[in-house]
Amino acid sequence: MPALSGSINRRWVLAKRPAGNVSKENFRWIESPVPSPAEGQVVVKNLWLSLDPTQILFTYEESGENSVPIGGVMRCIASGQVAESRLSGFAPGDIVQGWFGWEDYTVIDDRPQLTPKLFPLTKVPSDVAPNLAVGTLGLTGIAAYLGTMDVAKPRPGETFVVSSAAGGVGSVAGQIAKIHGSRVIGIAGGKDRCEGVVRALGFDEAIDRRSEDIGARLDELCPDGVDVFFDNNALPSMMNAVLPRMRPLGRVVLCGATQYYVGEQSTGGMDYISLIMKRVRMEGVYANDCGDRFPEARRALQGWIKEGRLKPVEDVMVGLENAPDALQRVFTGANFGKQLLKI
Amino acid sequence: MPALSGSINRRWVLAKRPAGNVSKENFRWIESPVPSPAEGQVVVKNLWLSLDPTQILFTYEESGENSVPIGGVMRCIASGQVAESRLSGFAPGDIVQGWFGWEDYTVIDDRPQLTPKLFPLTKVPSDVAPNLAVGTLGLTGIAAYLGTMDVAKPRPGETFVVSSAAGGVGSVAGQIAKIHGSRVIGIAGGKDRCEGVVRALGFDEAIDRRSEDIGARLDELCPDGVDVFFDNNALPSMMNAVLPRMRPLGRVVLCGATQYYVGEQSTGGMDYISLIMKRVRMEGVYANDCGDRFPEARRALQGWIKEGRLKPVEDVMVGLENAPDALQRVFTGANFGKQLLKI
Repeated sequence: MPALSGSINRRWVLAKRPAGNVSKENFRWIESPVPSPAEGQVVVKNLWLSLDPTQILFTYEESGENSVPIGGVMRCIASGQVAESRLSGFAPGDIVQGWFGWEDYTVIDDRPQLTPKLFPLTKVPSDVAPNLAVGTLGLTGIAAYLGTMDVAKPRPGETFVVSSAAGGVGSVAGQIAKIHGSRVIGIAGGKDRCEGVVRALGFDEAIDRRSEDIGARLDELCPDGVDVFFDNNALPSMMNAVLPRMRPLGRVVLCGATQYYVGEQSTGGMDYISLIMKRVRMEGVYANDCGDRFPEARRALQGWIKEGRLKPVEDVMVGLENAPDALQRVFTGANFGKQLLKI
Repeated sequence: MPALSGSINRRWVLAKRPAGNVSKENFRWIESPVPSPAEGQVVVKNLWLSLDPTQILFTYEESGENSVPIGGVMRCIASGQVAESRLSGFAPGDIVQGWFGWEDYTVIDDRPQLTPKLFPLTKVPSDVAPNLAVGTLGLTGIAAYLGTMDVAKPRPGETFVVSSAAGGVGSVAGQIAKIHGSRVIGIAGGKDRCEGVVRALGFDEAIDRRSEDIGARLDELCPDGVDVFFDNNALPSMMNAVLPRMRPLGRVVLCGATQYYVGEQSTGGMDYISLIMKRVRMEGVYANDCGDRFPEARRALQGWIKEGRLKPVEDVMVGLENAPDALQRVFTGANFGKQLLKI
């Protein structure tokens, strides 16, 4: 008789596709029995859910193969513990990660899922905490690593500006730039988060995008201009404040577009003249397509954490019932650090 | 007694700074005696004037040190022949180039001028025709070379789309991409110019931006997408047609912004999502800042011309009186190839 027979699986399923902002109303709470695994499957008891802005793409019909159907459980990267196994190589008690979901138990095999074919069920190495596995050592930290190392290439003495500085990616990117000797200015929403990125993360300066004029503050803080802009927002007004202040041969990392995921209309044009006259490079980073770089990125991030040079900052909500609220936090900019949910 | 004593110098001086489109009304025709050179100066009889979109920047007060004062002669890159010399190393009859102007005779020394400090009076090598010196082997060809070789890096079998394909830079950039084995699609204004880039320049396809839907035509001509977009316009509507069709790891060369120089308002936002999801690189090229690369660029361009692989296409107006009209042509897209004026 299966170990979990009779256990209840609490689940958040997609109820209504969002038009603009995502909220609790887009999901429905259901409770059903934990299914038994088929041959080749495991049952994972989920422990940590990762909440990312890109997750909202799963709720769109346009996402095709990656779209969650109405009534389907909301998908996310998560870590958990194998509760039952009919899959060779996996035993009850193993700590694993993969595309699980907003639910207590996920039944899954070890085939790659979604497009691109990445993140199959894998064991979390014994020296990696299951929260870090889906946060700073997961896609979030890897995106920060690739954007910083491949595109930004921060150098000592340079000025490195990062938006969503208090977010999961931004908090790591800024710290990596500090490790490489750059002067880091964070742009964050709200005084608390601005104080936080300076005190907790060691950034040199912070600009509150809610109450301050970004252009005027940059003129004060870095009158000689900006070498790197690591952007996670794709907010035209912010871009148009930063781009005219880029220095020759500056780099703009396009790593996120929080504003687009929730349907904010862009206004104003693109400052091509600044890019041309300063020979600025603007380049997109999409970690999902860089699976071959994951081992290198994880090794580097883990090394910096062990040396005490990189602080993994996490914002943890507790309780599966809070999953929709936790996702909403990354769009309203309420989180400080990587948004996780501990079930 | 100076050789040119009594000769008349016909000149176009700046009469009124343009607000939007530049036209004949912004300049005034004057005639004055040819001045005698001071010690360290030469008198150049101008032969070929280069007309470039960026030239309009000289008419703006905002251009500071580079701004032409009201009443000052309109400045341009030109080639000519030394008529009188009080400068060692230069003798009457020498073919030279530099920052001369819209006038019959320019009196000048050999110090670098303007910001950046480039293009001092120099002799044109004996194997370079004075028209090519200020066109395909001048800044125009060099910009095309640097944008193509440094940013676009065209590869065999790739699809290379170039805007202002019939212009001075675009016509050269597309041909360099062909030399490197890419399939080249030109975007040009008008059926004549579209036919021209295919017949005269050997481009594979052309899109008429005046009468065709650029996005729909790209879907027909390159359903698998675009590897390189070499842009000379910075026209938001065109950018928003091309960017969603970029292939992963595509490159966008920002080489010109004709639309901005004449004050066209940009509309619509910037397609950051395409740049992120496809990891596209967008990078500005500004040849003026790359003086150290000029010798390499000239050698390569000259080599391709000698081998018959690169056709320098020129659109020549004759007569100094036509200089304002010749400049206007590069903004209205009337020119086919590099716009020159032969005095």
